[in-house]
Amino acid sequence: MIDERLTKQLAFSLEIDKEKNIFRQTHLSGHGRNENDAEHAWHMAIMAYLLREYANEEIDICRVMIMCLIHDIVEIDAGDTYAYDEEAKKTQKAREDAAKERIFSMLPEDQKVELMAIFDEFEAAETAEARFARAMDNLQPLILNDSNEGGDWMAHGIKASQIYTRQGQTRLGSERLYEVTDEIIKKHIAEGHIKKGESTTHDCSKES
Amino acid sequence: MIDERLTKQLAFSLEIDKEKNIFRQTHLSGHGRNENDAEHAWHMAIMAYLLREYANEEIDICRVMIMCLIHDIVEIDAGDTYAYDEEAKKTQKAREDAAKERIFSMLPEDQKVELMAIFDEFEAAETAEARFARAMDNLQPLILNDSNEGGDWMAHGIKASQIYTRQGQTRLGSERLYEVTDEIIKKHIAEGHIKKGESTTHDCSKES
Repeated sequence: MIDERLTKQLAFSLEIDKEKNIFRQTHLSGHGRNENDAEHAWHMAIMAYLLREYANEEIDICRVMIMCLIHDIVEIDAGDTYAYDEEAKKTQKAREDAAKERIFSMLPEDQKVELMAIFDEFEAAETAEARFARAMDNLQPLILNDSNEGGDWMAHGIKASQIYTRQGQTRLGSERLYEVTDEIIKKHIAEGHIKKGESTTHDCSKES
Repeated sequence: MIDERLTKQLAFSLEIDKEKNIFRQTHLSGHGRNENDAEHAWHMAIMAYLLREYANEEIDICRVMIMCLIHDIVEIDAGDTYAYDEEAKKTQKAREDAAKERIFSMLPEDQKVELMAIFDEFEAAETAEARFARAMDNLQPLILNDSNEGGDWMAHGIKASQIYTRQGQTRLGSERLYEVTDEIIKKHIAEGHIKKGESTTHDCSKES
């Protein structure tokens, strides 16, 4: 009674359960455990909905939400790549491309095409929706790390230049939320949680 | 530079991080750990998007997704109430009403009203969107439990009558997905993972 289309949709639905086992460098508020990708995506999607009034351009919030929800699915195979780990980032694209093909191919062809397009749109960051979704990808761990006195930045010895290279992209999605981001970063630099100056151990030019 | 409105929105955004610490009775696939509310909501929202073609009525998928994402937020204060725990369910509404008021009141007034309305709509299950979202609330743990050989049902000695009372509501959102649900339940009854017959220790009439 379950036809091929629905069988594929349910198999994909079960497969993505594995995203709950992919842990990130970010810690939950209250100095909690590491956060996983599914939790991060859930949090981003709600924040996108709540903060949509601050997008620089008019956005389709529905598309932003589904983009947030699926943007890390490839990490089921490829693992999480820390935003400030330059070595891991060298192989990131190849690992994620293979994962993308395998995982989205579990869906019926039309939905494979649809979800891959949404995934690729996020990666390319060329639409208003993708830029706002990426702003959420930056802001969500920022507010957790802010609540934890910058613990994740301190643990990795992250420098201001590195943070600005990444978090500066929030401006492309929301000038207003970038103002807040900048305030938070400056506070943590002043408090010594983020090192001043340029990175000497990382190549910032390659940061996404 | 952060005005009152944005301060409230960010405080709410941080507050809901706590939902990641509210654990459910359902276990992740692969006989994994207990699932938490944030992961469950993320999973439901993606499934709603993928399976929207099976809704009985035309639905606003954007509203369904945000409904899925926030439907368990009150559990930050009220805790998770297992679908088959009749004692806990007696106090569930009072606990959740208090939580709803506290948590959504952190938002600016217009967003408090908006999100409470979405939350209440899910609870009332009277719109096409709410019925489909509730179908996802049933189907998502069903596919995990199915993948784990019915382990959660066996651990709690759940009977067929209890499962049908709850899962039967999926039919209100999607006849097609209820057919699949019924197939899965029948399989697990046949395999002995779900007890046949009526519950003797629970009052099924009160199940939601």
